[in-house]
Amino acid sequence: MSQIDYQHVLDEITKEVQPLLSQGKVADYIPALAEVEPNQFAIAIHTVDGQTYCAGDCGARFTIQSVSKVMTLTLALQRYGDELWQRVGKEPSGTAFNSLTQLEFEQGIPRNPFINAGAIVTCDALYSRLSAPMHSMLESFRQLSGNAQVVIDKKVANSEYEFRHRNAAMGHLMKSFGNFNNEVDDVLWAYFNFCAIELNCVELAKAYNYLANQGKDANGQEVLSARQNKQLNSLLFTSGLYDAAGDFGYRVGMPGKSGVSGTILAVLPNQFTVAVWAPRLNSYGNSVAGIAALERLSQKLDISIF
Amino acid sequence: MSQIDYQHVLDEITKEVQPLLSQGKVADYIPALAEVEPNQFAIAIHTVDGQTYCAGDCGARFTIQSVSKVMTLTLALQRYGDELWQRVGKEPSGTAFNSLTQLEFEQGIPRNPFINAGAIVTCDALYSRLSAPMHSMLESFRQLSGNAQVVIDKKVANSEYEFRHRNAAMGHLMKSFGNFNNEVDDVLWAYFNFCAIELNCVELAKAYNYLANQGKDANGQEVLSARQNKQLNSLLFTSGLYDAAGDFGYRVGMPGKSGVSGTILAVLPNQFTVAVWAPRLNSYGNSVAGIAALERLSQKLDISIF
Amino acid sequence: MSQIDYQHVLDEITKEVQPLLSQGKVADYIPALAEVEPNQFAIAIHTVDGQTYCAGDCGARFTIQSVSKVMTLTLALQRYGDELWQRVGKEPSGTAFNSLTQLEFEQGIPRNPFINAGAIVTCDALYSRLSAPMHSMLESFRQLSGNAQVVIDKKVANSEYEFRHRNAAMGHLMKSFGNFNNEVDDVLWAYFNFCAIELNCVELAKAYNYLANQGKDANGQEVLSARQNKQLNSLLFTSGLYDAAGDFGYRVGMPGKSGVSGTILAVLPNQFTVAVWAPRLNSYGNSVAGIAALERLSQKLDISIF
Amino acid sequence: MSQIDYQHVLDEITKEVQPLLSQGKVADYIPALAEVEPNQFAIAIHTVDGQTYCAGDCGARFTIQSVSKVMTLTLALQRYGDELWQRVGKEPSGTAFNSLTQLEFEQGIPRNPFINAGAIVTCDALYSRLSAPMHSMLESFRQLSGNAQVVIDKKVANSEYEFRHRNAAMGHLMKSFGNFNNEVDDVLWAYFNFCAIELNCVELAKAYNYLANQGKDANGQEVLSARQNKQLNSLLFTSGLYDAAGDFGYRVGMPGKSGVSGTILAVLPNQFTVAVWAPRLNSYGNSVAGIAALERLSQKLDISIF
Repeated sequence: MSQIDYQHVLDEITKEVQPLLSQGKVADYIPALAEVEPNQFAIAIHTVDGQTYCAGDCGARFTIQSVSKVMTLTLALQRYGDELWQRVGKEPSGTAFNSLTQLEFEQGIPRNPFINAGAIVTCDALYSRLSAPMHSMLESFRQLSGNAQVVIDKKVANSEYEFRHRNAAMGHLMKSFGNFNNEVDDVLWAYFNFCAIELNCVELAKAYNYLANQGKDANGQEVLSARQNKQLNSLLFTSGLYDAAGDFGYRVGMPGKSGVSGTILAVLPNQFTVAVWAPRLNSYGNSVAGIAALERLSQKLDISIF
Repeated sequence: MSQIDYQHVLDEITKEVQPLLSQGKVADYIPALAEVEPNQFAIAIHTVDGQTYCAGDCGARFTIQSVSKVMTLTLALQRYGDELWQRVGKEPSGTAFNSLTQLEFEQGIPRNPFINAGAIVTCDALYSRLSAPMHSMLESFRQLSGNAQVVIDKKVANSEYEFRHRNAAMGHLMKSFGNFNNEVDDVLWAYFNFCAIELNCVELAKAYNYLANQGKDANGQEVLSARQNKQLNSLLFTSGLYDAAGDFGYRVGMPGKSGVSGTILAVLPNQFTVAVWAPRLNSYGNSVAGIAALERLSQKLDISIF
Repeated sequence: MSQIDYQHVLDEITKEVQPLLSQGKVADYIPALAEVEPNQFAIAIHTVDGQTYCAGDCGARFTIQSVSKVMTLTLALQRYGDELWQRVGKEPSGTAFNSLTQLEFEQGIPRNPFINAGAIVTCDALYSRLSAPMHSMLESFRQLSGNAQVVIDKKVANSEYEFRHRNAAMGHLMKSFGNFNNEVDDVLWAYFNFCAIELNCVELAKAYNYLANQGKDANGQEVLSARQNKQLNSLLFTSGLYDAAGDFGYRVGMPGKSGVSGTILAVLPNQFTVAVWAPRLNSYGNSVAGIAALERLSQKLDISIF
Repeated sequence: MSQIDYQHVLDEITKEVQPLLSQGKVADYIPALAEVEPNQFAIAIHTVDGQTYCAGDCGARFTIQSVSKVMTLTLALQRYGDELWQRVGKEPSGTAFNSLTQLEFEQGIPRNPFINAGAIVTCDALYSRLSAPMHSMLESFRQLSGNAQVVIDKKVANSEYEFRHRNAAMGHLMKSFGNFNNEVDDVLWAYFNFCAIELNCVELAKAYNYLANQGKDANGQEVLSARQNKQLNSLLFTSGLYDAAGDFGYRVGMPGKSGVSGTILAVLPNQFTVAVWAPRLNSYGNSVAGIAALERLSQKLDISIF
């Protein structure tokens, strides 16, 4: 696939999705997210042999939101290995409406590490093993993205914390079931800071390139073992897009993870990672133009893991 | 009914329930409750014409736990009237397992003021209107029970607060839906203090005698209007015993409210209130001997509201 | 209360509810019900000493629908006594949306005999003990109402049967849990015939007068024991109006049972039964004008069981 | 991968799983399934270039049960294309306990074509387009497996039909929501016959080889388009193993489908299909030794779609 003209494909896609940029709604549950200029778009590919391609607003930075959950899980797996699965499951969650319903029914064990409850409990685990969780997380992104200037958007983090009550409910519910070790508010503060890390699409695709590279970073260092990396990709495939994982797999055919800032990261194992960003969301909380762009990429390159 | 020898009936019942005093389990979700001597029993009647009858451990005090919710609701109705029903429903909750499930599905409006979420939101309403909520609540019980020495068991209140996480989850969930005005932890602290008020059966029957007396206290002062009082009794009948309200009505035929300390208060309108206490609970969290005693009372006196 | 001018009160109420007769929607889930002239109204009282009062469209007949469930339960209690409660519960159901959800969660044991699943399993029990269930049911209504001409509206029964699929789902689900003994479709056919019995308000109030009369019919014959009768009234109070039982008790203060034809039966123990009919329903499936009329009756006569 | 000694690998696996053959429980919800000799095991690979490898009880036939749902979906997609997705979803179901709960909540649209409700509604769609559904299904398996003698185990089909009530509940519930066009019992009869088709592992792997071969059968005929085939594999990956899809993907890394007879079919795109059979099931209804065998195959060959 090395002769593929990725740049041309990304340029085409960027043109084709223009009509979609005005569809959907920017996340507005916190003021800091609602302020973004809504019709932006960027898409970047980072290949396992180190090439980068980008089209659209390549320099624009955004908070990565739930895409940070993949790094949280990665850091937790480094420290806990399979022991982590005693505290969080590996199954798709089924329905959105019932985050707390399901968590109550399943006695405080979240379904998977990518729904909020699951990411928060993974944060709690990580929090217990890191002396400076926010510093460690920032350093991971700085090293993997190759940009030592990566920062946290504190305005977004503060705003998320102020409106934390649904997430706080999940934390306290897990604590009532004995599946939470630190103070709920402390862990939430770390969690919201992780979500508020700012990257552009090029940096995002590069930071997560180990997912496409059998778990190895650009220097060949092992971030995860090859086996863990396959497992993580499998979890992304079954649970990475909330209640739209089945449809995303059906249309795009790659593991992926979305965030409410309108970004989606997807992985073509052994080939590349691709990051897309367009702030307007569909009813599932996924980027309208982002999903369309990835679907086109899948069709144009005739790629799929199947 | 005035010629009834209530004392004789209570003495009989006290004898008859002895074999039940070793059945069931004392609440042990907090250490402070688990320490009670488990095989105690008391039952007291206070008639609307001011007579008191008691049998068993009449002087023994216990924290009234959820029976305090009736006073919380009374004080809130005094201050809000029907406006209160915008924040809490009037319907039975149906099932125990789903406190948070139902609260999430119904978007932060608890089913009724006697389930935990409903009592907590009622507390939140009351908290907004009282400068010293714990003082006001204590004073209400002191005046209505005729014992100026009524106190709060601070050890129990502290223990409940320490293990508050399920209730905290409910508070935060309601706050995420916009149905909570104060700090969750502040309201919970007041709530647990209300639950930790200590009374004996005689005092408890007397304090709530307005429920049997068309809303008037022993001095003829209106605590609630006659109409509000009937309405509150109706709510107790449909929702006072958690998930066993239907069975309690079927067997006992009176409105009632139970608490996890093993106490139950019941009302025979225009006749009397009756308070019973026996610490061991059945699987619904209601006193085994307490329910049996009230069922016998209902049969012996051939009473029922129907 | 014998000097009360019931007729005057019913006439007043009939005038007062006129503006409500155009509010709400006639049940239209089957064509046969949708055809009714929607703005009719009738209200009738039958006292325990045999007096009848009526106002409005007193002669108009309607299918009694779910009000038949009270007779089904009565006939089943006559034959099974407390053994019946092994197959159906005594608790309020909590929520409408989840008839099948709750039935699945509670493994085929319906919450109470007044929700559809509970009435259908009660029918199944009755079906096993009657050689001619529809004949027996008709005879009960003929004898108790004093009208030997009572009939079943076969058009309605056939239409209900044609659109039986949700009820069939409940029957098959109970059968899958071992809580159903006869053929699902056979029992449903009987059930729909019971629902399609035609009465007017006067006949309906008279037929169920035993509920107000300690279980005895007009001839002093025991339909239910006094104790069973109190128990049945308690069940009606906690579960007779689907998901609006709490609100109905709060506003009306009497046990009652509603049907989707727009009828409601209520009971003032030891005084009277009252039947009301007005076809337009609120969102809970209860008659708009019917509930308003009973609420006014409760206020005007200052009655309540509390 | 062509030099791999598949036979050696299958032989090894067959030895290694021996200790597991006595673990788990044979399905016993119908007598006909409970009668199987429980400790059997077979595993077969059919490669896209037409090679077959097998170890264990290669000749033993079993009813394919839910693995038939993949063929039902295939035949329905041939006839309806994307129109089918109006009647059934593409998302994982999340939880087992709630088949009817979820179906009720989502108003008669099953989550995906591999849970029972989804397979039944797919059958209903197919039933409307085939004059002889059972004949057509048999012919498909005969042609694709290369065995013209494939039959239906009528004893199993009859037994399933007799105990059909949970599935009948689903059918009637969908019909009540307007998502069912034929008679429920007729469609169930076809459905149970499809489930009762008898194959051995070699035939099963061969019959479904189009899933690994871009949608083409052994003769190069298109069963599904390449795109539809990728999509179907994606659906299998996210939903093929009921509530254990996430764990199966995590451990095995291939799309798959299991049946309660203890068989599992898995697909390595562009390489092979593999069928395994061992009757004893774990608590999710999946073959204990079957999953272990596929996990070992994945590890030994270092295969995964990621």
